[in-house]
Amino acid sequence: MSFELETYLAEKRRIVDRALDLALPLPQDLTRNVVEAMRYSLFAGGKRLRPILCLAGAEAVGAAPESALPAAVALEMIHTYSLIHDDLPAMDNDDLRRGQATSHKVYGEALAVLAGDGLLTEGLGFLAGAAVKGDLDPNLALAALSIIAGAAGPGGMVGGQAVDIESEGQDVGLDVVEFIHERKTGALIAASVTSGAILGRGSKTRIAALEDYGRRIGLAFQIVDDILDMEGDTISLGKEAGADQARGKATFPKAAGLDRAREKAQRLVEEAVKSLENFDAQADPLRAIADYLLTRKK
Amino acid sequence: MSFELETYLAEKRRIVDRALDLALPLPQDLTRNVVEAMRYSLFAGGKRLRPILCLAGAEAVGAAPESALPAAVALEMIHTYSLIHDDLPAMDNDDLRRGQATSHKVYGEALAVLAGDGLLTEGLGFLAGAAVKGDLDPNLALAALSIIAGAAGPGGMVGGQAVDIESEGQDVGLDVVEFIHERKTGALIAASVTSGAILGRGSKTRIAALEDYGRRIGLAFQIVDDILDMEGDTISLGKEAGADQARGKATFPKAAGLDRAREKAQRLVEEAVKSLENFDAQADPLRAIADYLLTRKK
Repeated sequence: MSFELETYLAEKRRIVDRALDLALPLPQDLTRNVVEAMRYSLFAGGKRLRPILCLAGAEAVGAAPESALPAAVALEMIHTYSLIHDDLPAMDNDDLRRGQATSHKVYGEALAVLAGDGLLTEGLGFLAGAAVKGDLDPNLALAALSIIAGAAGPGGMVGGQAVDIESEGQDVGLDVVEFIHERKTGALIAASVTSGAILGRGSKTRIAALEDYGRRIGLAFQIVDDILDMEGDTISLGKEAGADQARGKATFPKAAGLDRAREKAQRLVEEAVKSLENFDAQADPLRAIADYLLTRKK
Repeated sequence: MSFELETYLAEKRRIVDRALDLALPLPQDLTRNVVEAMRYSLFAGGKRLRPILCLAGAEAVGAAPESALPAAVALEMIHTYSLIHDDLPAMDNDDLRRGQATSHKVYGEALAVLAGDGLLTEGLGFLAGAAVKGDLDPNLALAALSIIAGAAGPGGMVGGQAVDIESEGQDVGLDVVEFIHERKTGALIAASVTSGAILGRGSKTRIAALEDYGRRIGLAFQIVDDILDMEGDTISLGKEAGADQARGKATFPKAAGLDRAREKAQRLVEEAVKSLENFDAQADPLRAIADYLLTRKK
């Protein structure tokens, strides 16, 4: 394939990082600390997978990637909020994330809760604000907002995390693991691609195909994450390896074995790429990202 | 005055309660517990001040109160999320709220964090969703969303709570107390009235006047809250009296004395009512609510 994924990812990452930086300036008043905490986690070296999928979703339906930039910003803020809250002592109690100390380790628990709250609020507010400023079509912005909030709320990420926490130390079946993964990770990844396609004025058929793609790579991404947690080492992962096992987390390889987990991830990625069969070369980034998710080492 | 505030509040409370109930049904799947936790706090006997101010804001500009109902729902969800998170052990560590055990006491800390996250997400998502369904004008919905998110985020509630926590046990001046109150309480109360007026298609001048009103009663409300905490008893307050003092919270009566605090609240309410001088009898509910906030006992 002539498509250069590394170059593509690096370029898009720069666009996203710049937009995030502009979206959340450091204030000069007493609220500086909480915004600093928000920025600390936002710029802690994330892969920017969700915002890049959002831009690539717009591109896949023939639009300029930048037409989806406000949704990309919202998605990364919302993803980062979820990491901060997941890492809290009352949740997964993680000290390390992306190779750096987690928010509550640096800023204390209260400010970490608030930094997460702030990122969630700013994320959704930024998208609405972009439409108010005239940068987005109001109806498309509302559709994107609604899909992103649905994927982040109790029917998505919040619900998945709740069931994940409740399932710790329990011997749950594959159906529950899939239920968790689809909500905790899959929903926001699918919303990333579809919100991009919505802002790119994609047709209903194309948006539906991209949702299929998103749900499949979302689940594959989480299964690969579980495998890496089981096989990886702390330094290359940037977070504590084996942490899921230590906590008795419901994971795919634990419920189905490593071999079946690998097969499942492989099959999901193949199906995801197949969902794009009616798309032309403009969907090459999405195709390449699907393959990359399967072979990544962290 | 012929206007009957008690009747008005009771009627509006019923409308809001019914809308909240419909907006957050209990699912039949594994996410039931987290949604139950969200509903537990949402129906724990709140005064519904913010949603009622929102409906009254629409009424004040000559619209049907129900035209602002989706924003009213969003505001109460967002307010409830802030209470759940404020009560967390890492924040104010309160066991009692509105006369009932706080969320983390009933559901544990992890689910309490998630219930708050869920309510914040659902609140903003519900407002966007109402516009997607065609219940609201898209541009007005986006303007309301943007204002509510701004009031809830680091420039408002989240920022105010952060500075509040950081100021505990410190001898801060009146300026800092006002800074905290304006953000922690005043911003969302002002956004309640203005978002209602926006959805009610009020003019810019009227919305600006209602914002003045909202900021003033918001600050007055918080000062009265501080006075009640100092003077009240736990049973009539439904939360622990004297808790602010025990934690060394920055409060208005602590920084300025009880007498000056009472005078300030009185003056703010008078100014708030004066902001409404160009409004006719349709703003009577707002006038009566301002007086009620000053004389309330809990």
